[in-house]
Amino acid sequence: MTSMDLIVQKYGGTSVGSLERIRAVAERVVASLARCRRMVVVVSAMAGETNRLLALARQVSEAPEAREVDALVASGEQVSAALLTIALRALGRPALSLLGHQLPVLTDSNHGRARIRSIDPERVLQALAQGNIVVVAGYQGVNAAGDITTLGRGAGDLTAVALAAALKADLCEIYTDVDGVYTADPNLCASARKLDRISYEEMLEMAGLGAKVLQFRAVGLAWRYGVPLAVRSSFSAGGQGTWVGHEDKAMEEVLVSGVTLDHNQSKLTIAGVADRPGLAARIFGPIAEAGIVVDMIIQNAGAEGRTDVTFTVAREDLPAALDKVKAVAAEIGAQGVRYEEQVAKVSVVGLGMRTHAGVAARMFKALADEGINIEMIATSEIKISVVVNARYGELAMRVLHDMFVPAAAHPGGREDR
Amino acid sequence: MTSMDLIVQKYGGTSVGSLERIRAVAERVVASLARCRRMVVVVSAMAGETNRLLALARQVSEAPEAREVDALVASGEQVSAALLTIALRALGRPALSLLGHQLPVLTDSNHGRARIRSIDPERVLQALAQGNIVVVAGYQGVNAAGDITTLGRGAGDLTAVALAAALKADLCEIYTDVDGVYTADPNLCASARKLDRISYEEMLEMAGLGAKVLQFRAVGLAWRYGVPLAVRSSFSAGGQGTWVGHEDKAMEEVLVSGVTLDHNQSKLTIAGVADRPGLAARIFGPIAEAGIVVDMIIQNAGAEGRTDVTFTVAREDLPAALDKVKAVAAEIGAQGVRYEEQVAKVSVVGLGMRTHAGVAARMFKALADEGINIEMIATSEIKISVVVNARYGELAMRVLHDMFVPAAAHPGGREDR
Repeated sequence: MTSMDLIVQKYGGTSVGSLERIRAVAERVVASLARCRRMVVVVSAMAGETNRLLALARQVSEAPEAREVDALVASGEQVSAALLTIALRALGRPALSLLGHQLPVLTDSNHGRARIRSIDPERVLQALAQGNIVVVAGYQGVNAAGDITTLGRGAGDLTAVALAAALKADLCEIYTDVDGVYTADPNLCASARKLDRISYEEMLEMAGLGAKVLQFRAVGLAWRYGVPLAVRSSFSAGGQGTWVGHEDKAMEEVLVSGVTLDHNQSKLTIAGVADRPGLAARIFGPIAEAGIVVDMIIQNAGAEGRTDVTFTVAREDLPAALDKVKAVAAEIGAQGVRYEEQVAKVSVVGLGMRTHAGVAARMFKALADEGINIEMIATSEIKISVVVNARYGELAMRVLHDMFVPAAAHPGGREDR
Repeated sequence: MTSMDLIVQKYGGTSVGSLERIRAVAERVVASLARCRRMVVVVSAMAGETNRLLALARQVSEAPEAREVDALVASGEQVSAALLTIALRALGRPALSLLGHQLPVLTDSNHGRARIRSIDPERVLQALAQGNIVVVAGYQGVNAAGDITTLGRGAGDLTAVALAAALKADLCEIYTDVDGVYTADPNLCASARKLDRISYEEMLEMAGLGAKVLQFRAVGLAWRYGVPLAVRSSFSAGGQGTWVGHEDKAMEEVLVSGVTLDHNQSKLTIAGVADRPGLAARIFGPIAEAGIVVDMIIQNAGAEGRTDVTFTVAREDLPAALDKVKAVAAEIGAQGVRYEEQVAKVSVVGLGMRTHAGVAARMFKALADEGINIEMIATSEIKISVVVNARYGELAMRVLHDMFVPAAAHPGGREDR
């Protein structure tokens, strides 16, 4: 393998979940120095730690202040970054830890889901120039006032990709507890296969659709800055994992690269609304202001100029969304509000769908053949999503995977696990 | 009670040792607002947390890097400060947490035992002006390079006093698990009494001599800046605790304010050294360079121009001190090195000793009457310390306490606990 200048590696919570694993990560980092001249390592909090700290906050207050919660949970990455640095030094390697505010990773003030405004690479470059492996606490930043912020769940990936972009790294390796990106969740779908390559665009759709292997925002940022990503297992020695990069010819020939299932969706319906211009703004304005992301929206015209508006949100946002929707429903004279706490969103994703017609039709027919009712549909250039009853989510995923991702047809081929 | 402008309160690890106790501290803080207009609260890490984090570091490395250990353990106060702030807000009080680097508490780079260079009160004053109770993470600071530092064990007191000085607070209240400063450790000496008042000078001697109720450096800083201190229990409702301030007439009339016992002392002897000018520098230079504080020193002239040099160090410094001493002993041709891992230092402290002669003589006689051999003696203007065999430490303390601190004679009087 050609030697590179700079690699950014990221290790998730499970990978640093115990002292033993932290030592193993240190050894993997040192071994990686054979492949590059300089290394930056981004770490998450030890597995379970963020949840433990959040539970403490919730035991003290029903509605803990977001600013304080961020200072609280940011301590988790502070601990794992220091411990990994100590482990690297125990192996005789110069190493230095840096926290979000020490770079700084400058963010907005949206505590709990802050957005990165800029990363100053100077401190990292300086520590690298002094011969250090630099360990950066992921997931955290600092706003202009000096308050600690966090970037949202899974944002350790985001820190790694943003750092890789700021440092113009040759490669960003995401180490996790699976050995790559799969055509479907292997826990739910026995015929799921690891992909050798996937395009940013497909990966972005899959991450947005519930594939947990990479964070959605991280993939978007990698795409925008052209950061080459590799998703690898921190628990197995071999395997190249999955490369995420710009699409190439081979990728376009694949009709469907993956099938995803997202169980954490709730569906709300405002029934019997007078269908007038500006209705969507009346309904979705307050929801957007509350920071709730609406996923799919459908509107069914009904009798007498009245209509039903149905939409989905992440399940954790359901209580807040219901509050807003009930208030709006009363204002606009709707007949009622209904909701389902859990629905399943099943999606197929593939660059090949751009040029191949008929995927949607085959998909709908396959589900109908299994007696699965489609409640909502959303499409993009390279994906089709359907919402179905939560009970049929896994079945729908397997049916679609077996139809669109035949075991032998994928150019990535099968890799023994 | 006259209402004050600004009080700084400090709560130790036991006081914030559980979520229940953190809630109790929040209630005490809110109740204290009846006594003052503005409040700053300094917190330690939850009891046991600092040790837990240190143990993690030691499991990863035999010699964890001091910079990383500081970043690691500073997370402990970060957690308790955030949780107390959340608890205060749950009581409906505006509150804000600030970490060492957010003020900043600027220190030197002596990780693990950094000294405060300056505290910028601006951020605290601003948060107070916005109506907040300000919660500050104790024990931690930041050096000029932006690295997190810690101020040494017990330095939560130091943060509180330094902040009180920087903010020109009316009062600094140290809440702890005992209800004040005692004439001797009440666990070891049944006749020990709580003092109502004690001078900075006496308190400094007692803290330096092993009384754990207040940190030595904190008392010194309070004295220097004239910060009025109160030591109180965070577990009992009533009681004025002990006031620490400038001496007054009543204080000077007390012969002995307290008797202390320090079991964490080791004694080393370099035997048979040729007694030449510069000997002390040869011996104690390398020890000082290693950051080891030497407490008592005696030199016994012997036969043929040879002498024994004996000194004490904190027990935790014994291994390092032995290393240095053995090297020096070889260089200077000493006949040998002896040591006792544990000796007891017993001290009597009191402003009255300035004007009353004969305390030392009475002290030595009392110990002799009990058959306790005095191995070393050190005196200052207001204290006399003796080193005795570790077995006799507690007996010596009780004998001296009963002799010098009669139950009825103390102007502070007895306060029912």
